[in-house]
Amino acid sequence: MNTVNHQFRLAARPVGAIKPSDFTYASEPLRPLGAGEVLVKIQYLSLDPAMRGWMNASEDSYMPPVGIGEVMRAIAVGRVEASNNPAFAVGDHVSGLLGVQEYAISTGQGLNKVNPALAPLPMYLSVLGMTGLTAYFGLFDVGQPKAGDTVVVSGAAGAVGAIVGQLAKAHGARVIGIAGGADKCAYLVDELGFDAAIDYKREDVAAALKTHAPTGVDVFFDNVGGDILDAVLTRLAHGARVVICGAISQYNNTSAIKGPSNYMQLLVKRASMRGVMVADYYPRAMEAITAMGALLASGKLKSREDVVQGLETFPQTFMKLFDGSNNGKLVLQVHA
Amino acid sequence: MNTVNHQFRLAARPVGAIKPSDFTYASEPLRPLGAGEVLVKIQYLSLDPAMRGWMNASEDSYMPPVGIGEVMRAIAVGRVEASNNPAFAVGDHVSGLLGVQEYAISTGQGLNKVNPALAPLPMYLSVLGMTGLTAYFGLFDVGQPKAGDTVVVSGAAGAVGAIVGQLAKAHGARVIGIAGGADKCAYLVDELGFDAAIDYKREDVAAALKTHAPTGVDVFFDNVGGDILDAVLTRLAHGARVVICGAISQYNNTSAIKGPSNYMQLLVKRASMRGVMVADYYPRAMEAITAMGALLASGKLKSREDVVQGLETFPQTFMKLFDGSNNGKLVLQVHA
Repeated sequence: MNTVNHQFRLAARPVGAIKPSDFTYASEPLRPLGAGEVLVKIQYLSLDPAMRGWMNASEDSYMPPVGIGEVMRAIAVGRVEASNNPAFAVGDHVSGLLGVQEYAISTGQGLNKVNPALAPLPMYLSVLGMTGLTAYFGLFDVGQPKAGDTVVVSGAAGAVGAIVGQLAKAHGARVIGIAGGADKCAYLVDELGFDAAIDYKREDVAAALKTHAPTGVDVFFDNVGGDILDAVLTRLAHGARVVICGAISQYNNTSAIKGPSNYMQLLVKRASMRGVMVADYYPRAMEAITAMGALLASGKLKSREDVVQGLETFPQTFMKLFDGSNNGKLVLQVHA
Repeated sequence: MNTVNHQFRLAARPVGAIKPSDFTYASEPLRPLGAGEVLVKIQYLSLDPAMRGWMNASEDSYMPPVGIGEVMRAIAVGRVEASNNPAFAVGDHVSGLLGVQEYAISTGQGLNKVNPALAPLPMYLSVLGMTGLTAYFGLFDVGQPKAGDTVVVSGAAGAVGAIVGQLAKAHGARVIGIAGGADKCAYLVDELGFDAAIDYKREDVAAALKTHAPTGVDVFFDNVGGDILDAVLTRLAHGARVVICGAISQYNNTSAIKGPSNYMQLLVKRASMRGVMVADYYPRAMEAITAMGALLASGKLKSREDVVQGLETFPQTFMKLFDGSNNGKLVLQVHA
């Protein structure tokens, strides 16, 4: 084997916004497979806001940080090229934490087989992957919407948000999305069937919620944090549930995260705020996949992937998540 | 009737810390009682952090603000001096939202009879009143401690905090109080039986929690907000419950409340944050009073009231809540 493996390694812990120099584009020859190991040729990389957190040195996170000099952590799908592991055969397709690189060598632990005949591979990184599970269990297990409830989702045109809104709609809720830009808002209402969309770049979110959610917000699924979280907290209905999924507006802060100034509304409105951690739901993954598979088949759930070509574009492509220029689930194609 | 009724009326909405000039000390002759009305001679006023919120013009609170020129709102106990209401006889003792004044005329709505033969009157404003109900239901209904859990309470030497800690201790929890000053901390451990106390004025709260709560905080009952809330959020145990009762460190802010920067720990630790609103539990008041009455009788629950004399001292006495100079439940004696 003389194959060269190109990789992005973490060069520096970012201060504020990430920049290309926080990564090193490296290459190394692939080493021979050891006993029990599997070689995966990576086809698609999942680019997720959570990756920004993995770049920090924080000891208070749910995963250890990526070490300086290590291959950047990422979920990917690919094809098994060689295998010393009886559980995986050459030609199998698998997903797992394979890293920002062309090839990964795995012990097989944490690898899941996926079937490209049932769905396009990028979909296993979006609605049929971690993104979909986060949306499904965050909405139903933490948010607990009832039919007729008003559900608001921020980052609504993003990977998780778009699924949350569609699931809530299929469940009989009134759904309002918060997104940045007229195009995204039109997409939410016209393509995904949201009841309303608020363009936070042009509208006062609290005022718009008074119009679109006159009886208050029963469930708020927050991917964004910051000023949008604060605005929605002022419009909670009695007994509201706030689902904390992410805070992408705050991940590039150089100072501390802006906490929600209006958190005392939890008291006034007898509301709760809870986090959703997708790893807790892996044992129940089939429940979500089955339910969402049926909605996909019936056309009630649409999946949109924003597929960008070429491993070498990784830093710039990853940065799209933070300026909101991606449309749907951001995926990087590494190999055909 | 030529009785003069002295009153404190709201003169101005405070900007930042309250000052005496935010109130007017007024007097007016008592008007004759109308049909169905009750005249109450106020004996003890309850001074509570919530009163600070009632002075703001906010439309987002659970009660309308006190109007400029209106008698300042406060809970009190007193004796019925005259009655046109068959439900209340002269000589009855009652509690209710009677206001910062010597006498109140009430329709009887919201008045509750209390029995001075069973407990001293100030206790009906503390452990046997709203303060006790807030502690009891906030801890058990929202916090849901299990025996062996680590329970942390801020404002631990305050009216609600001291009860929360003792209830948690009697329930089999390990209890850590956060308070300001060596005297208060010694009181918590030596007199009330807390397992540990942290003096936030001298200690790093997060570091001290590492020592006193090595397995993390299962329940945090927060009366304080601000930096203390942020510190405790970094030490939550998996599945922790954060009970939001108050944020006295923030009520006098001239800018927005400091929201908890570390709220994303709710996600990392699969924790929840919920408010407790005592009014929701009035129908279950007897459950709490019965349980706490038994603990009082057995000596497992101690009540401490800080009784200050004289209606005319109201502004200065009320300000003690915000510099932490009160010891236990702050009560103002108006009449013997």
